[in-house]
Amino acid sequence: MDSRKKNLLVSWLGRGNPARQSHNLPMSEFFPNIPTIKYEGPLSDNPFAFHHYNPEEIVAGKSMKEHLRFGAAYWHCMRNGLGDPFGEGTALMPWDSGEETLDNALNRVPVFFEFLSKIDIDYYCFHDRDISPEGETLAQTHEMFHKVVEKMETFQNQTGKKLLWGTACLFGHPRYAHGASTSPNADVFAYSASQVKNAIDATHRLGGPGYTFWGGREGYGSLINTDMKREVDHLAAFLHMAVDYAKSIGYTGQFYIEPKPREPSTHQYDSDSAACLNFLREYGLLEHFKLNIETNHATLAGHTMEHELEVAMNADALGSIDANRGDELIGWDTDQFPTNIYGTTNVMLRLLKMGGFTTGGLNFDAKRRRESHEPEDLFHAHIGGMDAFARGLKIAAKIIEDGRFDEFVKTRYSSYDEGIGADIESGSATLESLDHYAQGINPPQLSSGRQERLENLLNDYL
Amino acid sequence: MDSRKKNLLVSWLGRGNPARQSHNLPMSEFFPNIPTIKYEGPLSDNPFAFHHYNPEEIVAGKSMKEHLRFGAAYWHCMRNGLGDPFGEGTALMPWDSGEETLDNALNRVPVFFEFLSKIDIDYYCFHDRDISPEGETLAQTHEMFHKVVEKMETFQNQTGKKLLWGTACLFGHPRYAHGASTSPNADVFAYSASQVKNAIDATHRLGGPGYTFWGGREGYGSLINTDMKREVDHLAAFLHMAVDYAKSIGYTGQFYIEPKPREPSTHQYDSDSAACLNFLREYGLLEHFKLNIETNHATLAGHTMEHELEVAMNADALGSIDANRGDELIGWDTDQFPTNIYGTTNVMLRLLKMGGFTTGGLNFDAKRRRESHEPEDLFHAHIGGMDAFARGLKIAAKIIEDGRFDEFVKTRYSSYDEGIGADIESGSATLESLDHYAQGINPPQLSSGRQERLENLLNDYL
Amino acid sequence: MDSRKKNLLVSWLGRGNPARQSHNLPMSEFFPNIPTIKYEGPLSDNPFAFHHYNPEEIVAGKSMKEHLRFGAAYWHCMRNGLGDPFGEGTALMPWDSGEETLDNALNRVPVFFEFLSKIDIDYYCFHDRDISPEGETLAQTHEMFHKVVEKMETFQNQTGKKLLWGTACLFGHPRYAHGASTSPNADVFAYSASQVKNAIDATHRLGGPGYTFWGGREGYGSLINTDMKREVDHLAAFLHMAVDYAKSIGYTGQFYIEPKPREPSTHQYDSDSAACLNFLREYGLLEHFKLNIETNHATLAGHTMEHELEVAMNADALGSIDANRGDELIGWDTDQFPTNIYGTTNVMLRLLKMGGFTTGGLNFDAKRRRESHEPEDLFHAHIGGMDAFARGLKIAAKIIEDGRFDEFVKTRYSSYDEGIGADIESGSATLESLDHYAQGINPPQLSSGRQERLENLLNDYL
Amino acid sequence: MDSRKKNLLVSWLGRGNPARQSHNLPMSEFFPNIPTIKYEGPLSDNPFAFHHYNPEEIVAGKSMKEHLRFGAAYWHCMRNGLGDPFGEGTALMPWDSGEETLDNALNRVPVFFEFLSKIDIDYYCFHDRDISPEGETLAQTHEMFHKVVEKMETFQNQTGKKLLWGTACLFGHPRYAHGASTSPNADVFAYSASQVKNAIDATHRLGGPGYTFWGGREGYGSLINTDMKREVDHLAAFLHMAVDYAKSIGYTGQFYIEPKPREPSTHQYDSDSAACLNFLREYGLLEHFKLNIETNHATLAGHTMEHELEVAMNADALGSIDANRGDELIGWDTDQFPTNIYGTTNVMLRLLKMGGFTTGGLNFDAKRRRESHEPEDLFHAHIGGMDAFARGLKIAAKIIEDGRFDEFVKTRYSSYDEGIGADIESGSATLESLDHYAQGINPPQLSSGRQERLENLLNDYL
Repeated sequence: MDSRKKNLLVSWLGRGNPARQSHNLPMSEFFPNIPTIKYEGPLSDNPFAFHHYNPEEIVAGKSMKEHLRFGAAYWHCMRNGLGDPFGEGTALMPWDSGEETLDNALNRVPVFFEFLSKIDIDYYCFHDRDISPEGETLAQTHEMFHKVVEKMETFQNQTGKKLLWGTACLFGHPRYAHGASTSPNADVFAYSASQVKNAIDATHRLGGPGYTFWGGREGYGSLINTDMKREVDHLAAFLHMAVDYAKSIGYTGQFYIEPKPREPSTHQYDSDSAACLNFLREYGLLEHFKLNIETNHATLAGHTMEHELEVAMNADALGSIDANRGDELIGWDTDQFPTNIYGTTNVMLRLLKMGGFTTGGLNFDAKRRRESHEPEDLFHAHIGGMDAFARGLKIAAKIIEDGRFDEFVKTRYSSYDEGIGADIESGSATLESLDHYAQGINPPQLSSGRQERLENLLNDYL
Repeated sequence: MDSRKKNLLVSWLGRGNPARQSHNLPMSEFFPNIPTIKYEGPLSDNPFAFHHYNPEEIVAGKSMKEHLRFGAAYWHCMRNGLGDPFGEGTALMPWDSGEETLDNALNRVPVFFEFLSKIDIDYYCFHDRDISPEGETLAQTHEMFHKVVEKMETFQNQTGKKLLWGTACLFGHPRYAHGASTSPNADVFAYSASQVKNAIDATHRLGGPGYTFWGGREGYGSLINTDMKREVDHLAAFLHMAVDYAKSIGYTGQFYIEPKPREPSTHQYDSDSAACLNFLREYGLLEHFKLNIETNHATLAGHTMEHELEVAMNADALGSIDANRGDELIGWDTDQFPTNIYGTTNVMLRLLKMGGFTTGGLNFDAKRRRESHEPEDLFHAHIGGMDAFARGLKIAAKIIEDGRFDEFVKTRYSSYDEGIGADIESGSATLESLDHYAQGINPPQLSSGRQERLENLLNDYL
Repeated sequence: MDSRKKNLLVSWLGRGNPARQSHNLPMSEFFPNIPTIKYEGPLSDNPFAFHHYNPEEIVAGKSMKEHLRFGAAYWHCMRNGLGDPFGEGTALMPWDSGEETLDNALNRVPVFFEFLSKIDIDYYCFHDRDISPEGETLAQTHEMFHKVVEKMETFQNQTGKKLLWGTACLFGHPRYAHGASTSPNADVFAYSASQVKNAIDATHRLGGPGYTFWGGREGYGSLINTDMKREVDHLAAFLHMAVDYAKSIGYTGQFYIEPKPREPSTHQYDSDSAACLNFLREYGLLEHFKLNIETNHATLAGHTMEHELEVAMNADALGSIDANRGDELIGWDTDQFPTNIYGTTNVMLRLLKMGGFTTGGLNFDAKRRRESHEPEDLFHAHIGGMDAFARGLKIAAKIIEDGRFDEFVKTRYSSYDEGIGADIESGSATLESLDHYAQGINPPQLSSGRQERLENLLNDYL
Repeated sequence: MDSRKKNLLVSWLGRGNPARQSHNLPMSEFFPNIPTIKYEGPLSDNPFAFHHYNPEEIVAGKSMKEHLRFGAAYWHCMRNGLGDPFGEGTALMPWDSGEETLDNALNRVPVFFEFLSKIDIDYYCFHDRDISPEGETLAQTHEMFHKVVEKMETFQNQTGKKLLWGTACLFGHPRYAHGASTSPNADVFAYSASQVKNAIDATHRLGGPGYTFWGGREGYGSLINTDMKREVDHLAAFLHMAVDYAKSIGYTGQFYIEPKPREPSTHQYDSDSAACLNFLREYGLLEHFKLNIETNHATLAGHTMEHELEVAMNADALGSIDANRGDELIGWDTDQFPTNIYGTTNVMLRLLKMGGFTTGGLNFDAKRRRESHEPEDLFHAHIGGMDAFARGLKIAAKIIEDGRFDEFVKTRYSSYDEGIGADIESGSATLESLDHYAQGINPPQLSSGRQERLENLLNDYL
């Protein structure tokens, strides 16, 4: 997850530009030239239509929308001005006054729900500070937050749209510069706790089946001034408090941790799936948390997305997915929309094998390029991601139904299904018994791993 | 650890070149022009002398040699022909016939111990296949192995040199192309077990206080043909067998796992410290294993060496160190000798804080550049590494004695020593109590982290 | 290009294994279970058939084989034992005795031509040392080389197969450890010259329309012992000599330089397209050289393949292509077969726009994974690459015919087609005139770059 | 160079916080608790003193200040709020109202010159938009700019501080999102020209001996919508206009281009030294431009700083240096202060060999960490960089005076000083003559490159 909070402050047309003032257009039409996106099939050349995503179409026993459970990110859709470290935001957001006020915050809500309706996405995700501003006092901050939450609830009820997960932004404000629950300053820990309490309350009220922790500042800039052990202990204490609080209020949603190795920090403690699982095991938290895996975070950690998914699945800890893609030649989080069919196929293969999401979904934690600053680009971007995942789903279903991949892998390991292999798996073999066995057999000859053949086969399904 | 086994097969002067034949020089002098290396102090400009490493000098309460416990790697010193993927070995090894025979293997032993004596290193490490060749049968392989072990034992006794840790090479032979204990072929698992049994036997006989697992092939080339869960289960079974076997023969040495993310495999399961710890926790192995951390493997995983050391230390799992350095602009294991004073200082700071090694040491898993192919380069390389660690030790001791760094860090976290911070650490605070507290305080103001000031201070110690 | 020369020396079944001895099978059938590969169309599930590559099918006005001009690499097909820095070769090559003899070299020739015939590839590439061994003397080395060249010529005539380009291996032998034409040792420069003279002679004799320089050792391990200026001057002198020599013998083929940033050296002078062009311009060589661009080398330099192609094309210097793909999460040259349809489409788009190859072709500088060690894997690998490029060609032709991409780009820059933009392009505008102009216009408003829309459109063609 | 323009807009204490209001302190004391920094020698433990930089001390024939020609960056010192993509600025700047007004811009000038005086740095660098804001119209923008320039001139005269180079910010404003001189919109090209004209005027007026181009947006986000050839042509036209304009007004300062491979763009055309030189050669600009090399940009391009310096020096094109350091494990521009002694030594070695700067200097294009947000951290950071370069200078001077490195390299290439080597260098050798020569000599034997020995020797100088 990736909230470029500041970017939303200023949009280049926002300073007195007429285009910006014109937001007293009919409130039901913030995207006046964009139709509601519908499925038209692969032969359509209408860019404002799905060519592959057909929500009600049944694939592998479920509708596409049930499989994919798409989510949109409030931060990228509503609050990302598309700035970068070298330049101001470019995004045209005529509905947004650019002010950090409750009014402006409330005004954004119908825009977002119109977007969800037009793009036909059922779920959304948000941080507390995406939807409402920092106040003069913490109490005022919370008060404004819950007012916006109330409006979100109303719009949920009116539109049928649902919250996928909520979270708190514990990385944007300067008070979190040295960490939130890992801050050297205990008052900052308390502020973090206060935000999380309220964000869990809101998630509970909005019926969100999940709540996510992303620790962009939970790490260090340098070890030279850091007590890593103490910080990680504090992080664990923080998560235990969240678990306890949820229990106390009867919130039964799933908690997620989202791994990422770096950016903004030099190192974040939740650096990849294995690091998260190690932490959760060490501090007795594994039963309470699953992972929210993101493609671009996986590659920044030096792993493929499918690797991170399998690591999580093998620990029964894959909870949800932040759908995007990175540029592997670039060393930061580009958060591009997922349009690579190989990538979406690889994700859907794992999801189908896992039996699909329980509480999670495919949340588009992805942003348009800074050069794609017009509102319609929001639609192109999401359409592309949704169509790519629809293709990935259909290809994955075909691969599984066909069975040739699974058969190959099953056969490849079949020497463990009986004889000495079965002894190894059952625990009855020892180094000594295997030493004895090995000295009595012909030297083992390997069969080819056939990677190239299997890569060709994969292409045949595309 | 890094055995470039093949490279040693052929050395370019090895084919009928007179220089190679001349190894019937007096057996006590394989390095005829190299003196025994002694400390001469920082003003010396003798390249064949230590300028900083003074073995008996007391630093922070112990002699330098006790602190540093240097080890030399049999594979790099004796068996690394300095080939690379694009070129043949270049190393001049006039004592080596280039043949994969027991005789040649036995001939190398006195050379290595002469090297240890001249360079004044007390410990060494080896793989089974470094010291003796593959035979026609597994039984013959083991037989040759134990003959060389016997000769090593004799030389240990004669010279007082000691084994730091032993290991088995489960990555060089084609039979391990698809993994050793993670091979899809159960017979290969059995072969691995047989090698490890014998390598543990040898380590036990040679009095080695540690035994290392490095899983260069314990991973995958591609997930397309891999059952990751089954492979990791097999890896855990394998390590449990090793633990059980050690117990059965009364071997009480420490087991180590050595993390590395990739190369030779696309992904190795023991990819970094956190991944190893997660695995060890999941499979109930954490009490039996510590980590052997290598600088170049840390950086290939995207981490600093000091990060990996602290992760291991915080889990009470730092066992030993493979001393080298990488080139962070290069994406493979360059295994250069550690000559960067910042790097050695950072390692020694952690070691001193941990209280020093118990069973482990600083094993130079480092090789000369391919262009440094003369025997004397072996000496330059090790002298450089030893002097750099001696400087690192002295600087680290000064830093700790001076106390300014520790004081800064202690003060930085002091808000957790009392009040709300102490409540957080004691577990008496909750999200609700902290929410209440936070609403009642002034907004927290951070003190600077002073990273630049501390970096300047570090330079003052150099 | 990537000659893992040593790896071929030993194959694990090569030492006395019966499978290896059995190479006195009928010499016309080295791949007895592999049929000649033919086009069967996308519905075929025969792995030993092309599903997309239909050599005589006309696409965009030419047959697929004329467009693609596939080449096979002698080094990977015949001499790559599939070893890596941590392990011996695994490749089964029953026709190969494992000896570095002229006889064994001559025996490989019919195997290679049988492979070319069965896989239906028209061209091939080779280094001098791929096809024949190092002799006792340089004269003997050359003599053996020309004997094998003679046999290659015979087989070319018999089979109709053709040489795409030749080259000399100036990186494998220890004498080149410090460089070939950039060696600090002038005698090594002379040896390099001698090899290149003979390799050009052979290329001329075999009718090769191109000759390639790849400078794996033309760079440095460290600047600490290097005179970069002098080395680069020597490199330029060397290339001028080659140009002069070609002229003197009437060889009119195209010279190529192949960029790669590192591996085996820390830095190679020919690091990417721009570095090569800069060098060629500085030393007056640009009229004589074009570039041979490789995907995996592009990504190791931090560039996309399409970037490197466009840089070369814009300088009218794209000569030939080494077709493969890398793994961008891995920091070395994995030389995988190109099976990614996005990648092949991007290459073919540029090739079609350039008007196709003149002297060059798509040479598979790609190797099977070490785990794919059976002879049939050679076929799977090449089939996959050929089918992927066939798909890329067809998609690219469709994109160009359709014209929507080109139209978008043309329109995007249309402000330079007239008015102030035309003044800029014609050279009639100045800073002052533009300053004056800019102060008189409304602030420029950008249109969206529509990257996401175009990425969706690209997916529509797949 | 790196202007994080937006970050300065808001500082967290800036919104109504008392600390921020207190800037009506005596205008002569913006850094009230910071003394003027003076040399106190290596034994001092005063953090607000130089321990190594002694401006008037003579080293290698010149004073340290003449050698080092330190510059401070207006953008980092005055305008960098220390925000990052995930969080707001943290920097405390009590003198700054946070407003984008001329008044606020004018108010910053005395602060900066007080900083230069207290830190004892003689030179500075700036972008147009650092020192003055964007106006309602372009004319107004220029007007405000020249008012601030006038004030800068006054302060230069009063303090003796000097401009090192000026530049225009052509990357921050949304109008430059698709490029400045490489924008697809010709009006944007005209705006760029207008800014550069005025920035050259200002640099001329302020007596700046250099003017820099950094093309953060002169590249592409994706090739999918880009006409690279046309864009690069436009870039060249732009630079020619600047050259012509300078001539027309009698400005004789040196033009610089600053290489960087990416960030903010996916690819920038000025990606590294070689790419810049290639471009300058192609378009006939090499006589008018030199390079401004930055360490962090070098490493992002995959090169060491010393590599980039040598490439530039060998083309007689090293003009100036942006002094900083990166974190090689991190894929973006961290712009840390240069405190690594190895790094500064390597830079100073090249500078001394080149004979020192002519028009250029060591400009600290470096920023404090976001966690180091207090004004005093600006001083720690610059002191650390200045001391590190002072040490680098002294070490480099010692190395050159001592001569052992130079002697080693000279000897290593001595075979080119006579005989066949001299024939090669003189151009009298040919492939044929060398082939003949090579067949008549004994096979060349290499001497060791002694990299390890030389690395030890380098440590001896530290």
